[in-house]
Amino acid sequence: MRNIKLTIEYDGTNYHGWQIQKNAKTIQGVILDAIKKLTREEIVLNGSGRTDSKVHAYGQVANFKTNSNIPPERFAHALNRILPDDIVVKKSEEVDMDFHARYSAQAKIYRYLIYNSKFPSPLLRNRAWYVPYSLNFEEMMRAAEFFRGTHDFSAFRAVGSTVESSIRTISRISLEKNSDIISLEVTSNGFLYNMMRIIAGTLVDVGRGKFKCEDVKGIIESRDRKKAGQTAPPEGLYLVRVYY
Amino acid sequence: MRNIKLTIEYDGTNYHGWQIQKNAKTIQGVILDAIKKLTREEIVLNGSGRTDSKVHAYGQVANFKTNSNIPPERFAHALNRILPDDIVVKKSEEVDMDFHARYSAQAKIYRYLIYNSKFPSPLLRNRAWYVPYSLNFEEMMRAAEFFRGTHDFSAFRAVGSTVESSIRTISRISLEKNSDIISLEVTSNGFLYNMMRIIAGTLVDVGRGKFKCEDVKGIIESRDRKKAGQTAPPEGLYLVRVYY
Repeated sequence: MRNIKLTIEYDGTNYHGWQIQKNAKTIQGVILDAIKKLTREEIVLNGSGRTDSKVHAYGQVANFKTNSNIPPERFAHALNRILPDDIVVKKSEEVDMDFHARYSAQAKIYRYLIYNSKFPSPLLRNRAWYVPYSLNFEEMMRAAEFFRGTHDFSAFRAVGSTVESSIRTISRISLEKNSDIISLEVTSNGFLYNMMRIIAGTLVDVGRGKFKCEDVKGIIESRDRKKAGQTAPPEGLYLVRVYY
Repeated sequence: MRNIKLTIEYDGTNYHGWQIQKNAKTIQGVILDAIKKLTREEIVLNGSGRTDSKVHAYGQVANFKTNSNIPPERFAHALNRILPDDIVVKKSEEVDMDFHARYSAQAKIYRYLIYNSKFPSPLLRNRAWYVPYSLNFEEMMRAAEFFRGTHDFSAFRAVGSTVESSIRTISRISLEKNSDIISLEVTSNGFLYNMMRIIAGTLVDVGRGKFKCEDVKGIIESRDRKKAGQTAPPEGLYLVRVYY
């Protein structure tokens, strides 16, 4: 038996997120069906984590165990022949039997794109959050600094989500502006549910003047979701990379 | 009567090009219907030039004359309320009565995107030409230099297209590589039919070794379409800007 690691890019627009569901088209469901079609086995497919409906990925990671004699590196080609063109396996490789896409993950990079202009962009629809009001980018840059480091991110997770600990370490956060597009990139050892989208929404609230940049320190310390900003919409979010 | 200039962004994926046609959805047709709905007049809508099916625009320009009392700068908002979300008017303004989107144009910028990777990109499908074979980017850069300047571009226009002169001046050509994406940008006082797509296809043929970079000089001089490279597919092409 072999353990196969897949690296997957997808356009999440037309899916009900990663996680398999009955009666809804999901990315995990579509990939699992493709693997079963190839191997004719019962398969368990572990993802590195869920992504919500409309969220995209450049480098989602998943693994599965198989007795198939398909060479590990050929799974990418073989699966891509079956998969729809909005899901592509960029790499397939054999990994140690104890590798688990979720539990072995050390850190992830997420990117969030904001399109800040008077009118929406047809070429970025479903790809970025369209924000029409003017944003103070310098203030947003200053605010972003407060997220770096190890914090209890309770204020930045969806109400009702339950995990053991809400302490995470953001090792890198960057905000770049390229004409009308603002790109936020965050590297962390883990992301709470909606954490990246609430960080993006809070930074936009700083940019529009609802918060001052130094307010972010207090919001983090409050550990109160109600103190933080809006949850940014899913279409601007990209899972860029998972580190193992 | 007023002459109104529109600057338009569109995702051309779901259209049979710019030019109005019976029984086919075109960008000009959809915009014209929206203007007529607003003004309740017979309208002539002039575009700066046609774009083919699946070709995109960041800055297509069109103009029309109207007796409507809608303030010129309000047309953008009013039209965007009617238009589908893959066409957006970014700006509307009053111009001199003798302004004509096509005949007044001085120069245009077109961009062509190539996605050069082992597997296609779901997030760039319908947005770039997927080229799986390896490309020698340095050779492509050298080849691009030969296009700059004033030439008879007969070798770089679709067979059967007839215009008075095939002499055009390329004032700027740039080729950039950013990880897997190659971006070609050309500024010219005019583009023959398919000229940009044949230039892109010829540069890819140089990159894959079918031509040497110095062959491009002879191809241009031959004025023979059969000597030039393939016509790159439409989905990688963007009309970026029209100068007046």
